[in-house]
Amino acid sequence: MAESDSEDLSRVVARVRERIDPDAAERTALREAVEALSARVEDALNEVPVDADVIQVGSTARGTWLSGDRDIDLFVRFPDDVDRESLERYGLAVGNAVFPEGHEEYAEHPYVVGEFDGFDVDLVPCFDVDEGAAIQSAVDRTPHHNEYLRARLDEELAAEVRVFKRFLKGIGAYGSNLRTQGFSGYLTELLVLEYGSFESLLRAAADWHPPVELDPEDHGTRSFDDPLVVVDPTDSTRNVAAVCSAENVARLQHYARELLADPREELFVDDEPEPLSAAAVRDHVRRRGTTPVAVVFDAPDVVDDQLYPQLYKSIAGVESELGRRGFAPIRSATFADDDAVLLVELAHRTLPNVARHDGPPVHVRDHAEGFYEAYAGGDAYGPFLNGDRYVVEREREFTDAADLLRSETLFEVGLGANVEQKLREGYEVLVGDDVGELAESFGVELARYFDPRP
Amino acid sequence: MAESDSEDLSRVVARVRERIDPDAAERTALREAVEALSARVEDALNEVPVDADVIQVGSTARGTWLSGDRDIDLFVRFPDDVDRESLERYGLAVGNAVFPEGHEEYAEHPYVVGEFDGFDVDLVPCFDVDEGAAIQSAVDRTPHHNEYLRARLDEELAAEVRVFKRFLKGIGAYGSNLRTQGFSGYLTELLVLEYGSFESLLRAAADWHPPVELDPEDHGTRSFDDPLVVVDPTDSTRNVAAVCSAENVARLQHYARELLADPREELFVDDEPEPLSAAAVRDHVRRRGTTPVAVVFDAPDVVDDQLYPQLYKSIAGVESELGRRGFAPIRSATFADDDAVLLVELAHRTLPNVARHDGPPVHVRDHAEGFYEAYAGGDAYGPFLNGDRYVVEREREFTDAADLLRSETLFEVGLGANVEQKLREGYEVLVGDDVGELAESFGVELARYFDPRP
Repeated sequence: MAESDSEDLSRVVARVRERIDPDAAERTALREAVEALSARVEDALNEVPVDADVIQVGSTARGTWLSGDRDIDLFVRFPDDVDRESLERYGLAVGNAVFPEGHEEYAEHPYVVGEFDGFDVDLVPCFDVDEGAAIQSAVDRTPHHNEYLRARLDEELAAEVRVFKRFLKGIGAYGSNLRTQGFSGYLTELLVLEYGSFESLLRAAADWHPPVELDPEDHGTRSFDDPLVVVDPTDSTRNVAAVCSAENVARLQHYARELLADPREELFVDDEPEPLSAAAVRDHVRRRGTTPVAVVFDAPDVVDDQLYPQLYKSIAGVESELGRRGFAPIRSATFADDDAVLLVELAHRTLPNVARHDGPPVHVRDHAEGFYEAYAGGDAYGPFLNGDRYVVEREREFTDAADLLRSETLFEVGLGANVEQKLREGYEVLVGDDVGELAESFGVELARYFDPRP
Repeated sequence: MAESDSEDLSRVVARVRERIDPDAAERTALREAVEALSARVEDALNEVPVDADVIQVGSTARGTWLSGDRDIDLFVRFPDDVDRESLERYGLAVGNAVFPEGHEEYAEHPYVVGEFDGFDVDLVPCFDVDEGAAIQSAVDRTPHHNEYLRARLDEELAAEVRVFKRFLKGIGAYGSNLRTQGFSGYLTELLVLEYGSFESLLRAAADWHPPVELDPEDHGTRSFDDPLVVVDPTDSTRNVAAVCSAENVARLQHYARELLADPREELFVDDEPEPLSAAAVRDHVRRRGTTPVAVVFDAPDVVDDQLYPQLYKSIAGVESELGRRGFAPIRSATFADDDAVLLVELAHRTLPNVARHDGPPVHVRDHAEGFYEAYAGGDAYGPFLNGDRYVVEREREFTDAADLLRSETLFEVGLGANVEQKLREGYEVLVGDDVGELAESFGVELARYFDPRP
């Protein structure tokens, strides 16, 4: 596709910026909120017996937030000779003092979340450590990331970051959570720094040949088996893009080309599709001539970063087992809210009674004799010869995919632990048209499934 | 499996020999017939203006024929400075003089076939050439083979050859015609010579690791890509076992082990199974839960050595095309007498309307852009991403295997030339139960198909 000239792209980006650049009022409100909060935190710190400080981090600290985002991240930095238990205790004490009506959450340490002047505030304790491998927990890196970026991102680059973030959100590749497996905020900012502008980054990404390896500080000391590698400027042993899936790298490449070839604002918009009705799902299934099968169960009560890796592992296991058994899966998907769903669309619900099973070459005498004796005179057809090998046609264990899903075999495919536990408590198997029932809870997901895009 | 002691085997072999060793009367009758025929040939040779002789070749010349075989092979050997046309003319003149009521057949040269005293006689002209590469046509080798073997096969070895031949016939691996692709008479004799006895040969074959390479005269000059290589003692460039398929080598290995483990006469008997009825065929199909499809047409009027390679090529092409299209073939077979049949047993007669089609990795920009543009906005589902690749689900060209077999696609699978010609004249497609109709002509073949053995 011919790339249009960049004036068109500039015009599109200008219109996007009108929507996402925070205006002066928003910036002022934010700055005032941060100043007031920091003062409150410092007051609270006077009540703890160690010397700690407060710093603002995250996109709102670096001018890279999108207009309307209301997140303030304040880190309370304790000396690294404080023990972990004390850090947690002091951290919560400060948090509860600042936000008497806040609540506690838990990442690597517990921390306090509160609201202030319309902003959602995270108040997170961390250790004040040196860069790199000295960190005691993942959050200890954050102040270093913040410092590195603040020193390099001027107002113009921050604007480029905002545009790139909005683009990644528009194409569904933003977020380093384990459901999305996309681009984190920090990664987004490092990429813009590396390439100098949104457009240069687009042009580079359109031509990437993964693995793509970037090392802004040229200090990397190990190799990574990831499609995109960006060595953390503050930790030479860490790939900032470790979570980013090959699919999301490809997604960025695809839409970078699309945007360059035909600049348009819609690529920056992540509107949900209209949910499908049950009837529409059934129409799709009939038109495709396939048999969808779905395992439906109560979603495990764990955070998304625990839930989705388990669902992905489980659906991969189910699809692969159905494939191995001959049901010829065409595609699969997994959804969750109150219920969790493992959906596999099959070319065939049922199979013949016999399945061909290739044995060893006749000349591998031990194996060959063992195979022949195991089947000769039994119910299988054969053994007979195909080329230099024995073959039998033996009875299938499952001739109906629904029977397989209702059997103990479901539990042998490598399910996630919490998924397995919930399935043990009970589940339903939907087949064919009955999968339409899922539209009630998962109409949007099914709309995406039946109109799949990059 | 434990090998039984060879006394049992000796007893079995002794009983087999009672059936297959020609008795004195049979030997005498044969010798007298050959003498009378040779005299007639020499008389006839007096009428041609070149100096030629007659020699007896083949199993009846070497004492390796099985009792009841009634074949006499006489070769008329002309000097190699005679031109081909003259050789053919003189050869036919002699043949017609010896057998005024015989008829002509054609291998590399025309030759005359006649009957004498209850024997079927081939009278074949050839050139009297040196060994090896000097031969002008394949039959010129025969006198050299004959001479080589006569000098080495004594009466006891000849008896071992007869037993091995009977065994190969019993297991269905005898014959170097292109239907069987088995062991030729000459190969059988060389193998017995090489290993010294039937039993030693069995014990060796049971442990073969193909490729097996034998070179009795230790003069081989090239390599061969065959599972069994026996360098021709009279031609260092030729593999005597070139026609022998991997399957027949494996078959010998399998039944050698069977005979050693449990010596029994039935392995020397090639009884035909009872033909299946149409109803029995339908019962098998129902029990297996498969869908057989068959293309039935008039068998091309060519010799078996031309017909079967074409049928094998055609059925391989049809099976592979049906597999590529998703119909999951389980097994195939081809039969011929007046009709020819290409039979494929499918796991599925019908398929969904959509088929998944994987495209290039997104990062291979030229291909990826071409693929995306070819499908975007079309009828296919997608393109979407799976890992780093584009995928589409596009409409299948054939959702019914019978439609494929009735379409022009049948002619694009690599059919043999005569097969294609006959199919162009018309054919019938049988599906499922209707395949039972084939039992009328091919009941024995179908009995073998539904009770497959090594």
